[in-house]
Amino acid sequence: VRSKDIQVNGFLASGIACGIKKTGKKDLALIVSETPAYVAGVFTKSTVKASTVVVDMKRERSGRSRGVVVNSGNANACTGERGMADTLRVIAATEKALAFNEGDLMMSSTGVIGVPLAVGKIEEALPRLAWNLKSNGWRDASQAIMTTDAFHKITCVKKNVGRTQVTIAAIAKGAGMICPNMATMLCFAATDANIKAKALKAALKEAVGKSFNRISVDNDTSTNDTVLVFANGAAKGPEIKTGTAAFKSFTAALSEALLRLAHLIVRDGEGATRFVELTVKGASNDKQAETAARRLAGSLLVKTALFGGDPNWGRIMAAIGTTNVKFDQSDVDILLGGVKVFSKGVDTGEEKRAAKAMKRNEVSVVVDLKRGKGAFTLWTTDLNYDYVRINSSYRT
Amino acid sequence: VRSKDIQVNGFLASGIACGIKKTGKKDLALIVSETPAYVAGVFTKSTVKASTVVVDMKRERSGRSRGVVVNSGNANACTGERGMADTLRVIAATEKALAFNEGDLMMSSTGVIGVPLAVGKIEEALPRLAWNLKSNGWRDASQAIMTTDAFHKITCVKKNVGRTQVTIAAIAKGAGMICPNMATMLCFAATDANIKAKALKAALKEAVGKSFNRISVDNDTSTNDTVLVFANGAAKGPEIKTGTAAFKSFTAALSEALLRLAHLIVRDGEGATRFVELTVKGASNDKQAETAARRLAGSLLVKTALFGGDPNWGRIMAAIGTTNVKFDQSDVDILLGGVKVFSKGVDTGEEKRAAKAMKRNEVSVVVDLKRGKGAFTLWTTDLNYDYVRINSSYRT
Repeated sequence: VRSKDIQVNGFLASGIACGIKKTGKKDLALIVSETPAYVAGVFTKSTVKASTVVVDMKRERSGRSRGVVVNSGNANACTGERGMADTLRVIAATEKALAFNEGDLMMSSTGVIGVPLAVGKIEEALPRLAWNLKSNGWRDASQAIMTTDAFHKITCVKKNVGRTQVTIAAIAKGAGMICPNMATMLCFAATDANIKAKALKAALKEAVGKSFNRISVDNDTSTNDTVLVFANGAAKGPEIKTGTAAFKSFTAALSEALLRLAHLIVRDGEGATRFVELTVKGASNDKQAETAARRLAGSLLVKTALFGGDPNWGRIMAAIGTTNVKFDQSDVDILLGGVKVFSKGVDTGEEKRAAKAMKRNEVSVVVDLKRGKGAFTLWTTDLNYDYVRINSSYRT
Repeated sequence: VRSKDIQVNGFLASGIACGIKKTGKKDLALIVSETPAYVAGVFTKSTVKASTVVVDMKRERSGRSRGVVVNSGNANACTGERGMADTLRVIAATEKALAFNEGDLMMSSTGVIGVPLAVGKIEEALPRLAWNLKSNGWRDASQAIMTTDAFHKITCVKKNVGRTQVTIAAIAKGAGMICPNMATMLCFAATDANIKAKALKAALKEAVGKSFNRISVDNDTSTNDTVLVFANGAAKGPEIKTGTAAFKSFTAALSEALLRLAHLIVRDGEGATRFVELTVKGASNDKQAETAARRLAGSLLVKTALFGGDPNWGRIMAAIGTTNVKFDQSDVDILLGGVKVFSKGVDTGEEKRAAKAMKRNEVSVVVDLKRGKGAFTLWTTDLNYDYVRINSSYRT
């Protein structure tokens, strides 16, 4: 399906420019279900939460919502009491414009922190936003939630769940501040599956654990991270309950959709020149493998070596040496771009071949600790000049 | 004292080029006491330790050593059994060249990981290294331990401890891979104070806690980090024992010497354009303040904003929000370059003034959590293009 043709039964989406972004680019999105729907969400673990996150977390607990209004260009975070009042005002105005009930909608914001939201501009644009709602409006919405993203991120998965064909459409934004615990990253998914809030939440948690929680660009977490999935049951079919084959099937479809978006976020990692798949295996257990993998993905020295295409396994050893991960350095194997550069604790002399294999857009890093069966894979980027350029001049 | 005039009673130092560095620069240093001396050391906490660190840790436990031979250009880490054999061979050859007893010397190495050490070149150069030993050889030694350092780091503190004037000379290297738990950083200090190993170790631990453990460039820790202090008692005077005023006085002098070197390492932070003093105060306790300060010093987004001179306090709030540090965001004050940009949880509108204050070589960041009396200060750098350049092309 081409991105402009993506549709989910009973869902409408739109995306327009309302003037928050000085560039005149799209900055206001709306996703709604034509009928009552269930919702499940996952939110930033930061103790500094944007007002939208505080409101959404409360509304998500009811398990019911008809959709979400999203602005980009301003995160409305650290804006004090005024920020919260602004959030509630925008939500109420949007609900009114759509003739929804109070409490039907949620809201997300992304962009600069600490600047008051231009509520007037949003309110003025609401009739146009509602007017632009259409079943194939997902691409517009995906463009309207972008900040430093180089491209919009959208996907659609269709899958037979039992005898019912179910559709999941999902959009995401994020290119920087991406880290394991859900970073400035927004993702909105909608499905016509017949699934209630509790099961939907279980499916979402599993899907996020396999996707967004396994990507890392710069180890920073934002105040606004949110993943919401709405389900309106428009595909009909029997209810999808936890513990069934149908639930497994639905969760796999949702995981696939979110993993595709997660990979797109890494590929769009601010200034990233390489898409890096990083695997630690042979650890005592999965948790130890995860600790080592996350440490490697967070090491500036490892990430700059990846940019340079330098098969500097020494930095990998040094980085995992700073963790509590158990291994004997004389056992370890390291493969870079598929080339074994370090074998049983010593250099293999394959540096030139590895350097060649690393100078590609996609690079794999495999560390085998030779201690047990624990393994963990995550996806990350290199660290390069563009990352510095983008992040040192973000607001200027 | 000019660096080439620095001397400590009874100590000799030298630094020469032996051919490990392809550039022909100095790469071999030696520091020895003319008489038996006490030693105390602090070493990397990495589980991946260079063979020199393993040997030194063992010898340091005896509390006695006459000095240390140091090579730069090669870390002799992750070099397997051969690496350990090479270390023992170099130490033995140096002891022999000086007619010392077996076990009298220690060794440090710094440079590239994973490459076998050119032991032949070192052995060939040992007579010349010994011949060059002189009481004012500290500057040569400080130059011979450099790797990516832009300048050599040397200091000298003279202080009256009781009625005895005591001298401490110290040299250090380090510009990258610097982080709280002692990173690719070597420091060698020598004093003529009359202090035995146990008290010397206590003084060293306190001094390191106030200096090297409070600097951070990129949060990476190396396999070779070592701080050694030798004391030969040549200043005479009564023995300095723990718990006395003399001990306090000596520890203050040692702390001052190490803090000067620590600040020089930050100023030489790979590609650093700013020297940043980062203070978190008003925390529930010092430990919480330290957690917040270390998180800020490790945040790529905070560090790139410091490079850009962008008073982006939002990134500071976002970063401390990811920690377990307790605070109420509506209490927090943030000062950048002395300008209050965030007051009781809201923007003060002083952005332009702060941006101007941040575009200096020295920038202070103060975060007041307004919760208690806990405080912690550390020193760090910005993150910029040169950091990426240096670290993506280190070996090529």
